[in-house]
Amino acid sequence: MTQIRRIILTEDEMPRQWYNLAADVNCPPFMSPAGPVPPEAWAPVFPMNLVEQEYSKQRWIDIPEEILSLLSRWRPAPMHRAYALEAALGTPARIYYKNESLSPGGSHKPNTAVAQAWYNKQAGTKKLTTETGAGQWGSALAYACSLIGLECKVFMVRVSFNQKPLPKLMMQTWGATCVASPSLETQAGRNVLDQDPESPGSLGIAISEAIEAAVTDPTGQTKYSLGSVLNHVMLHQTIIGLEAKKQLEKVGERLPDIVIGCAGGGSNFAGLSFPFVLDKIHGAKMEIIPVEPASCPTLTRAPYVYDHGDNAKMTPLVAMHSLGHNFIPAPIHAGGLRYHGMSPLVSKAVVDGLMSPRAINQLECYSAGMLFARTEGIIPAPESCHAIAATIQEAKKAKEEGKEKVILFNLSGHGMFDLLGYEKFMNGQLFDYELPQEIINKNHEALAGYPMP
Amino acid sequence: MTQIRRIILTEDEMPRQWYNLAADVNCPPFMSPAGPVPPEAWAPVFPMNLVEQEYSKQRWIDIPEEILSLLSRWRPAPMHRAYALEAALGTPARIYYKNESLSPGGSHKPNTAVAQAWYNKQAGTKKLTTETGAGQWGSALAYACSLIGLECKVFMVRVSFNQKPLPKLMMQTWGATCVASPSLETQAGRNVLDQDPESPGSLGIAISEAIEAAVTDPTGQTKYSLGSVLNHVMLHQTIIGLEAKKQLEKVGERLPDIVIGCAGGGSNFAGLSFPFVLDKIHGAKMEIIPVEPASCPTLTRAPYVYDHGDNAKMTPLVAMHSLGHNFIPAPIHAGGLRYHGMSPLVSKAVVDGLMSPRAINQLECYSAGMLFARTEGIIPAPESCHAIAATIQEAKKAKEEGKEKVILFNLSGHGMFDLLGYEKFMNGQLFDYELPQEIINKNHEALAGYPMP
Repeated sequence: MTQIRRIILTEDEMPRQWYNLAADVNCPPFMSPAGPVPPEAWAPVFPMNLVEQEYSKQRWIDIPEEILSLLSRWRPAPMHRAYALEAALGTPARIYYKNESLSPGGSHKPNTAVAQAWYNKQAGTKKLTTETGAGQWGSALAYACSLIGLECKVFMVRVSFNQKPLPKLMMQTWGATCVASPSLETQAGRNVLDQDPESPGSLGIAISEAIEAAVTDPTGQTKYSLGSVLNHVMLHQTIIGLEAKKQLEKVGERLPDIVIGCAGGGSNFAGLSFPFVLDKIHGAKMEIIPVEPASCPTLTRAPYVYDHGDNAKMTPLVAMHSLGHNFIPAPIHAGGLRYHGMSPLVSKAVVDGLMSPRAINQLECYSAGMLFARTEGIIPAPESCHAIAATIQEAKKAKEEGKEKVILFNLSGHGMFDLLGYEKFMNGQLFDYELPQEIINKNHEALAGYPMP
Repeated sequence: MTQIRRIILTEDEMPRQWYNLAADVNCPPFMSPAGPVPPEAWAPVFPMNLVEQEYSKQRWIDIPEEILSLLSRWRPAPMHRAYALEAALGTPARIYYKNESLSPGGSHKPNTAVAQAWYNKQAGTKKLTTETGAGQWGSALAYACSLIGLECKVFMVRVSFNQKPLPKLMMQTWGATCVASPSLETQAGRNVLDQDPESPGSLGIAISEAIEAAVTDPTGQTKYSLGSVLNHVMLHQTIIGLEAKKQLEKVGERLPDIVIGCAGGGSNFAGLSFPFVLDKIHGAKMEIIPVEPASCPTLTRAPYVYDHGDNAKMTPLVAMHSLGHNFIPAPIHAGGLRYHGMSPLVSKAVVDGLMSPRAINQLECYSAGMLFARTEGIIPAPESCHAIAATIQEAKKAKEEGKEKVILFNLSGHGMFDLLGYEKFMNGQLFDYELPQEIINKNHEALAGYPMP
């Protein structure tokens, strides 16, 4: 076997520190009407050890031994060379992908779920609340809480809750409680249902409910956990890119020319790309591409503003690209890419010119996913199909240019729970959907009077 | 991290030969009314290169480089030390498991699917037909055919086809055609439907349909592929146990005291255990336990006889433990463990006293699966839950005896498509079911006049 398809690392080779991009990219502070939000203001929501990470400017942060041990249940994750995809495309590009689909739960989400659950346990938390869209984050946190011994309650966006019964059963199997959002259990949920009893829900609404459920627990032992967007979440995910660097070295490969990940809240993309952003900051030539759906074009079409992270405006203002906290996304199948906002670090890196975001429509993404399934053999999550679609665009470009580019992308998860989406695609029942400009404009009216970053 | 949870091998360490138990355990020949069946009689069904393997008595058989390369897409598979399960049980036993759930398709089945598809391609086959119960085998063969460039048609047992929509979508995503069995496409299917239009189907019926569809193709370029039972299938699966041996050595472990796998047709159990059976034949003390459902107690309660492998009696007579080719299993959730027969090699090894089969009821298996999910973090297939249940029995026994036993079991697949079964278990909607002796007796009346092995 001269072609090594899977580049693996041993437990001993696992990165021992996370990389914190906040040391190298400067984000404006969280804002409240009273001005910048101090760390202690987050105390009702997050344990202080995680708040500290959220505010940290330290470039390298040690990964506690116990978290390494938890991660070692499925990490280091393999990196694959996509020989079969390359051959199908006839491209001179060398395509590599990190395979995050092999975790329990099937995505990159457990990387931060176990870290957050562990820090919460250390801080005395007894129960975590969270939201989930397609279910990847909710099941990851359920998994982590099960291993670490915390209660877990998940508010799942109603449209996904109804369309996808299996993820909630995963959460239940791991001992968590999962309810459809908007729910009658919170004021935020009741307010939405009063206005629209048929509301399909949104991540922004589910976040409001989960935060409310945490901060109103009179025992003070319930905290909230977020699966993307925030700096400490991006931090925990950087183990992906740090492993990838070691794996590329292992096969004698240079730094990639192009790094690609799909971006909803930004965490799998950040996880793969941030360690390479550091090289770019130090002069390496590299294109770093977050890919989003054309129906939810946060980085490519939404302005960089101060906005709330949730629908009920419970969070402070965050400097980020945002389609507006009232945004209700089209029901595309990539449930993890339908968030109105974006990681502040990813947003700022885009503003700083370190990244080149791209929007791709649904049908091209599913076509890419089908080609990937029939060449590389792994059926990708619809979210990951966005990264594959951009990879194929770049591989074709390399072919046209006759250049031996190195392309690295993140296969953020498998599509085992998304096969009904594939069925619709194969039956010609899916359509493309470009977000009309008027919707962005209208949502931004709600931001009148907010400060500008 | 002093506790190494995952023992991994590199591609270089992959076994280069399969182990053939037929060199060391002597099975009676396939029989037809004309006497023992010669290899060439199989020509309409299988390509001759696989028939040769089926009849081979050679102990070690080289794995072709191209098959190794295909396997390297997900192999070597990790072996895990089940520290968390051990702690939950408070057992002095050291528990290891091979994790076959990480393959595309999520089970051990692709190990033989890619091998069979490759040998067929070599022999000029254009299309493969097969049957599938729960869908693991059908999706594995669809995957393999997609990579190797063969057409694929799968007859899926109707009750599973209706209960589990996702596996058939996997097959379609990989380009295969999947129909419910009994179907109107074959004489075998029509015969069953004539008698019972509501027939839920069975593996035996689906095998008849798949064989008929292959042998009646006038081009002669369609062959049939079987996912278990036959010697060449067992052979391809031995890579599991051969890897496991290297992995145990790697952590300085002795030979296991107990080797456990669930057994439907026998392939995942054989794959893990056969290389250890060789040690047992050479004097090692070891308990080797195939585990089956109490509702389908082939090894524990059915006699060792000559019987057909399928319902329509298209196959020759096979010497094996059999509940009778007319057996229709109870609709338990472990769809892969509902076959009326058993691998001839496994059957003969049981007759020879090399293995100690055990039957376990459904509720105990799901309880075991839940404990495994909440400790080891992986939600197991209901089939694999049988192996886990026996492992827990043995770990408790080791605790009672105060013995530091080494237990190795095969996690044959994940339970992502079986979460509705878990839901029923959590809701108290599942029941135990012991097969009444009268059913076994009645089915065996159909074997009157058959030769005895």
